[in-house]
Amino acid sequence: MSNPEAAILVIGDEILSGRTKDKNIGWLAEELTALGISLKQARIIADDRQTIIDTVREFSKNYDYVFTSGGIGPTHDDITTEAVAAAFDVPVIRHPEAMARLTRHYEGTDIEFNAARQKMANIPQGAELIDNPVSAAPGYRIENVHVMAGVPSILQAMFKGIAPGLQGGVQPTRITVQCAIGEGTIATIMEAVSGQFDGVSVGSYPWFKPGQFGTAVVLTGLDAGLVENAASALAQLVREQGFSARRDEDNSIIGPASPRPA
Amino acid sequence: MSNPEAAILVIGDEILSGRTKDKNIGWLAEELTALGISLKQARIIADDRQTIIDTVREFSKNYDYVFTSGGIGPTHDDITTEAVAAAFDVPVIRHPEAMARLTRHYEGTDIEFNAARQKMANIPQGAELIDNPVSAAPGYRIENVHVMAGVPSILQAMFKGIAPGLQGGVQPTRITVQCAIGEGTIATIMEAVSGQFDGVSVGSYPWFKPGQFGTAVVLTGLDAGLVENAASALAQLVREQGFSARRDEDNSIIGPASPRPA
Repeated sequence: MSNPEAAILVIGDEILSGRTKDKNIGWLAEELTALGISLKQARIIADDRQTIIDTVREFSKNYDYVFTSGGIGPTHDDITTEAVAAAFDVPVIRHPEAMARLTRHYEGTDIEFNAARQKMANIPQGAELIDNPVSAAPGYRIENVHVMAGVPSILQAMFKGIAPGLQGGVQPTRITVQCAIGEGTIATIMEAVSGQFDGVSVGSYPWFKPGQFGTAVVLTGLDAGLVENAASALAQLVREQGFSARRDEDNSIIGPASPRPA
Repeated sequence: MSNPEAAILVIGDEILSGRTKDKNIGWLAEELTALGISLKQARIIADDRQTIIDTVREFSKNYDYVFTSGGIGPTHDDITTEAVAAAFDVPVIRHPEAMARLTRHYEGTDIEFNAARQKMANIPQGAELIDNPVSAAPGYRIENVHVMAGVPSILQAMFKGIAPGLQGGVQPTRITVQCAIGEGTIATIMEAVSGQFDGVSVGSYPWFKPGQFGTAVVLTGLDAGLVENAASALAQLVREQGFSARRDEDNSIIGPASPRPA
């Protein structure tokens, strides 16, 4: 079994300078995983025309789906659309439906639908619009590349709109086993289980709080039965060593790994 | 004037699955910017040996500094060290000083310094240790690649230790001008200023709150005087159009862009 593969491309100087913290990669990663689409890479690059062109071409060729965020606003530094069009060797056109949506959006407001804002109706020729229920200015899909806004609330609304049309795969089964044992002590068991159950990945997330420590072992794979068996085998091996192991029903509560002890 | 250039490589399946949210890129981005080191790219990849090797080689060749996070713990899926050594065609050695530090760290605890934990003393031959004041297991530098832990508190402590030894450049000057005007209205002014002041980048971050909206225009460049002049020119042009513009003294309070109006 193998799932469709995806890459995320975040475009924006403000992310690389640290001024703005990216929130789109983590959000999209969860959504894609839930759809059974394997995220293989995420990359953050500058608002640089040639870098955008090269990366869009590379990603479009190497992955089933590409999702970009950022650089489709009204200002001079919003160059994503021009660069994406160049990557596919097509011209940028003033898209009639996008114009209509933006015209309606600004009608009856005191905001002028000026030349800069009209730039948001520029779309690579042949692209299909992606709805923007938040602020009208659409994203678009060209071949396997989905171009979306950088503002998280808009990106999320756009993605929710296109998600039903994506060809998902098998949603991975993920089982967390909470073990009252340090990561370094359980390492041998994890390796054994990983070796025995091909297709199940076994990750460990040590945690620590005053007076207590343990390791959350996360088993993931596309074959639900195999993941179940691997989790049972791991829990049994941990118990045989004299430590407790229990299945964690709520994976979401496991935070990032704490520093000690390994 | 040009600053040293850097890339960040985050290694870990758990980031790509969305289970763990990366916190290292945003933190390192701010630190590097403050040191006058230009972050050109950040990439998140899987715990895959060949992908790590290829990316480390590519980054080491193309950037002055490379910083990696993740994959140097005690378990079987911590393969960063083995892959980094392979990228530089050197063997992995059991590093005596790393062994000494880890031995001391576990002495007098009830945690066994077993084979898995000893693996954390494995270092590519010729690498220099990076101190880990949190949990002893060191990172290391090999050529221009700095290999650090994925746990944010450890990565931050490691980076603080190496920062004084990095060759920084000119810290960019960044001036924020708060304009009581929509992003789409100010676009022409921004473009004019950007064109007139070569070496100054002009970015815009529209914000919106009930009853009010505006655009934070951020001017950045390595030549402080030039950035000052560009900011003054921009503020004057905005005022000439009848809108208020004031310099924002605290850049840090500007949050991520809000969705409306563009």
